[in-house]
Amino acid sequence: MRSWRTESSEQLFKHRILTLERRHLAAGPDRRQALVLDTPNWVNVVPLTADGRVLLVRQWRFGVAAPTLEIPGGMVDEDDARRAAARELEEETGCRARHWRKLGALHPNPALLSNRLTTFLATDLERIGEPAGDGGEEIEVETVPLAEIPRLIAAGTITHALVVAAFYLLAQSPPDASEDAAPEATPPAGG
Amino acid sequence: MRSWRTESSEQLFKHRILTLERRHLAAGPDRRQALVLDTPNWVNVVPLTADGRVLLVRQWRFGVAAPTLEIPGGMVDEDDARRAAARELEEETGCRARHWRKLGALHPNPALLSNRLTTFLATDLERIGEPAGDGGEEIEVETVPLAEIPRLIAAGTITHALVVAAFYLLAQSPPDASEDAAPEATPPAGG
Repeated sequence: MRSWRTESSEQLFKHRILTLERRHLAAGPDRRQALVLDTPNWVNVVPLTADGRVLLVRQWRFGVAAPTLEIPGGMVDEDDARRAAARELEEETGCRARHWRKLGALHPNPALLSNRLTTFLATDLERIGEPAGDGGEEIEVETVPLAEIPRLIAAGTITHALVVAAFYLLAQSPPDASEDAAPEATPPAGG
Repeated sequence: MRSWRTESSEQLFKHRILTLERRHLAAGPDRRQALVLDTPNWVNVVPLTADGRVLLVRQWRFGVAAPTLEIPGGMVDEDDARRAAARELEEETGCRARHWRKLGALHPNPALLSNRLTTFLATDLERIGEPAGDGGEEIEVETVPLAEIPRLIAAGTITHALVVAAFYLLAQSPPDASEDAAPEATPPAGG
């Protein structure tokens, strides 16, 4: 398989959430162009309560011009995906998690998007406030039993493919794995 | 939850594979803007052989500037997602399927993208030619046992989130369901 090298790149549109670029590529003597959406990385969080319920968020989504039912998630504005996940969880549900586990990192769409999506499981949840939403947007929190998720996906109640991928990763994740992804759990150097 | 109505839309960039729009939205007295990528619908196909192997395609992906291992898929250029799935399967693997089952329809990203992704299971496969690829791009076909897919995802060999979502739908799909999604199976009207 040939590697395509970027010879130059035109910025067609730039915005905080995405930059649209036309890349001019070369592989040996061949040349071609490709459109790429250069975006910040994303995170998704499956917030799971002690009694086996998932916190879902209902919000208006502008892409499909309709409300959707999703897990919390968003852009990684900071350096660390785990910190972004904690911020999104708190903004969208008003909850903080005492335990974090990384379920995996995927590409949301490697054909078009440059970014990565990291998915976390958040457990040992503590309610610390109200959902604030993002930029004043309304957000409603619903809790459903984890065992109900397959039915909600089959019924078309949950339609977000990246949320479905998160539940795949959770289903494949050994339930007794306890790698703690919380950065504050790192012992101080020399401690 | 308030509905946001599109009052007007600016086309920021237009291309065959996507149109980037800035939508001006209203909900009651409130106004806001949102970026939306208006794209054709997409299809994904899980091609499964009689001996339980999945046909995967390896190709260079320009978003992540690397080769990926995926199931066949692409844009719905025609009216019908099933026909698009058959075309993509044939282009990318050189195979035709005698049996099709729709596994589900999802939104690839309802926050940003307007489109839908329909996933099919293709079985009773017949090799009819060589993979042609899309626009002369190189494509390599690999077959792996279906039971190996979770390991390939966990290992980061398969990273495409929409492919992971497809395997979620397959895992949840009753194995004896036999809804035939092939349009040619529709009896003629009055027949």
